[in-house]
Amino acid sequence: MSVIGVLRETARGERRVALTPDVARRLSDRGLKILVETGAGGLSFFADEDYTGAAVVARDEVYAGSDVLLCLRRPDDLAAARPGQILIGLLGLDPLDGDGVTGISLDLLPRTLSRAQAMDALTSQANVAGYKAALIAAEACPGFFPMLMTAAGTTRPARVLVLGAGVAGLQAIATARRLGAQVTGYDVRDAARADIASTGAAVLDLASPRAEADSGYARGLTADEAGDQMRALTEAVPRFDVVITTAKVPGAAAPLLVPEAALAAMRPGSVVVDLAPGNVAGSMAGARTLLGNDVTVIGAPDLAATVPVAASTAYARNLLALLDHLMPHGEAVLDLDDEITRAVLLRDREGARS
Amino acid sequence: MSVIGVLRETARGERRVALTPDVARRLSDRGLKILVETGAGGLSFFADEDYTGAAVVARDEVYAGSDVLLCLRRPDDLAAARPGQILIGLLGLDPLDGDGVTGISLDLLPRTLSRAQAMDALTSQANVAGYKAALIAAEACPGFFPMLMTAAGTTRPARVLVLGAGVAGLQAIATARRLGAQVTGYDVRDAARADIASTGAAVLDLASPRAEADSGYARGLTADEAGDQMRALTEAVPRFDVVITTAKVPGAAAPLLVPEAALAAMRPGSVVVDLAPGNVAGSMAGARTLLGNDVTVIGAPDLAATVPVAASTAYARNLLALLDHLMPHGEAVLDLDDEITRAVLLRDREGARS
Repeated sequence: MSVIGVLRETARGERRVALTPDVARRLSDRGLKILVETGAGGLSFFADEDYTGAAVVARDEVYAGSDVLLCLRRPDDLAAARPGQILIGLLGLDPLDGDGVTGISLDLLPRTLSRAQAMDALTSQANVAGYKAALIAAEACPGFFPMLMTAAGTTRPARVLVLGAGVAGLQAIATARRLGAQVTGYDVRDAARADIASTGAAVLDLASPRAEADSGYARGLTADEAGDQMRALTEAVPRFDVVITTAKVPGAAAPLLVPEAALAAMRPGSVVVDLAPGNVAGSMAGARTLLGNDVTVIGAPDLAATVPVAASTAYARNLLALLDHLMPHGEAVLDLDDEITRAVLLRDREGARS
Repeated sequence: MSVIGVLRETARGERRVALTPDVARRLSDRGLKILVETGAGGLSFFADEDYTGAAVVARDEVYAGSDVLLCLRRPDDLAAARPGQILIGLLGLDPLDGDGVTGISLDLLPRTLSRAQAMDALTSQANVAGYKAALIAAEACPGFFPMLMTAAGTTRPARVLVLGAGVAGLQAIATARRLGAQVTGYDVRDAARADIASTGAAVLDLASPRAEADSGYARGLTADEAGDQMRALTEAVPRFDVVITTAKVPGAAAPLLVPEAALAAMRPGSVVVDLAPGNVAGSMAGARTLLGNDVTVIGAPDLAATVPVAASTAYARNLLALLDHLMPHGEAVLDLDDEITRAVLLRDREGARS
């Protein structure tokens, strides 16, 4: 049976851990040996002693002793890895630097396959991010999200616009609606517009481009389409108290949806939360900016890391499903005839495994 | 007709304003003259030019020209007031220092009178505070409030305990429930327990004191009762992921409900939000403390001021109802035969108007 190692995340602001004690125990019950780096779960409030059934060891021992290494983000000390090791995480799309290390990136998962859904970490983490985006927006909003009826009168609910209705956008819509806001969603994809409508939210219809790629993701817009969209959004955005942006295009920069002119036209006290930096003019990752016209812009690309128990729990379950699929007999031998396994392998420019 | 002056709030962290542009206009439509201090609405995102129908002037001109002065918190420059002026606000219970100034404190409103309810600023502000408390708790919580069902499994909802089920507590319960948490409430008053149950939340029953005073407020507990309650709560509190405390006793210090032993027994990642500092051992107003066992304690006594548009809007409507009652003909002459008017007057120790 293989040895599974869990690396502590080292990126700034990263509070998640790839494996929770619960999932570590389940793997260990299957006969796998688990090595967890000291302190790996600390920022997710999982103590070393919670990892019963695993050995808690130093980082170099995790590197030295594991057949499979688990992480969220690509480690910056991959030189410590051994040839033949398999590294699994949200590793992006680029080949690994590590000599002879096999990279398996959950960013490459074929998400439309139904048997891959339990492994879909992009979805689980976007779900957490969308939830937190709505909370942050509500917390920063100087008014109520819900309609409030009191003896002295009624206040209207906050008007919230969510741009981009993928997983994060839909969860932001659902959470803002739970809080009682009046929510409108927007997406360039017809299928996503239908998803917005199914939540009960209003759909912003801009007579603007339809831009669904075959993958189900949005495609990039032409310059003309993007210009039309931006002009239409510039007119629509100032009608809202809160705007949450989540629009990404795979393999490309996030499109600019809320330009300076739109921000300038918003009412004082309005709040913009940007989950896909690039969507909002001037938004900076991790920064809360109060513009001259009293509009707050919050750049928040990594929100899943700020709800670390929920995010780590979901991620660890995704890894459990992936490991069950990759290594049904507990041996770290990849079956390259398998569609999912082939898809998630990081390759170099020549198409070879990195 | 009288002149109504609006003072800018000067306390640190105070972002509310006593009168919104909307209510200022309504008073002005009734023939009253309104003086608003420059920048009074700024931190509530109401600009000076929004106050159409009012004159925006310097603070000394507000003091010099007004028959009635409106505020939230007691101003610290009351020496500038003129004898015969009436000051209206949440002024507390102590007599005013100002020479010959009549104080009308909304803290003294007879809240059980149904015709006083539209004037009830304690209720409207507590409502805002309870809403914000639930948001802050959700934002600080490392897990989800709602139950989450995904392809990779289900997570249980957060368990939230709200101590004290007055207006703030009930709104915190309602908001946490909106977000999908599993909420339990606790109060020493039978009527408040019934209110908790009516929201659909569970009621924590401690076989502990029943302590409702004739006023409808909680009475202070005897030392024995308080000890029993604290022991029972110390056992109950660690079962929850989030605790929100709102228990106040009029005219007395807030009771200690969550002692150090309870905090020490909570799980890592738990969150405590204390709206009534004194309820939680070691909580400090305005501070977020991470204890050694990874429990976060947030001391938040003035949350209404952090949702300034909602809080100011509600407060201004309360003042409108109060002014309509105190000055039905627009003249600042108090009718001391009126039950409400008599009740809200601040008096000195001899019972004379302060």
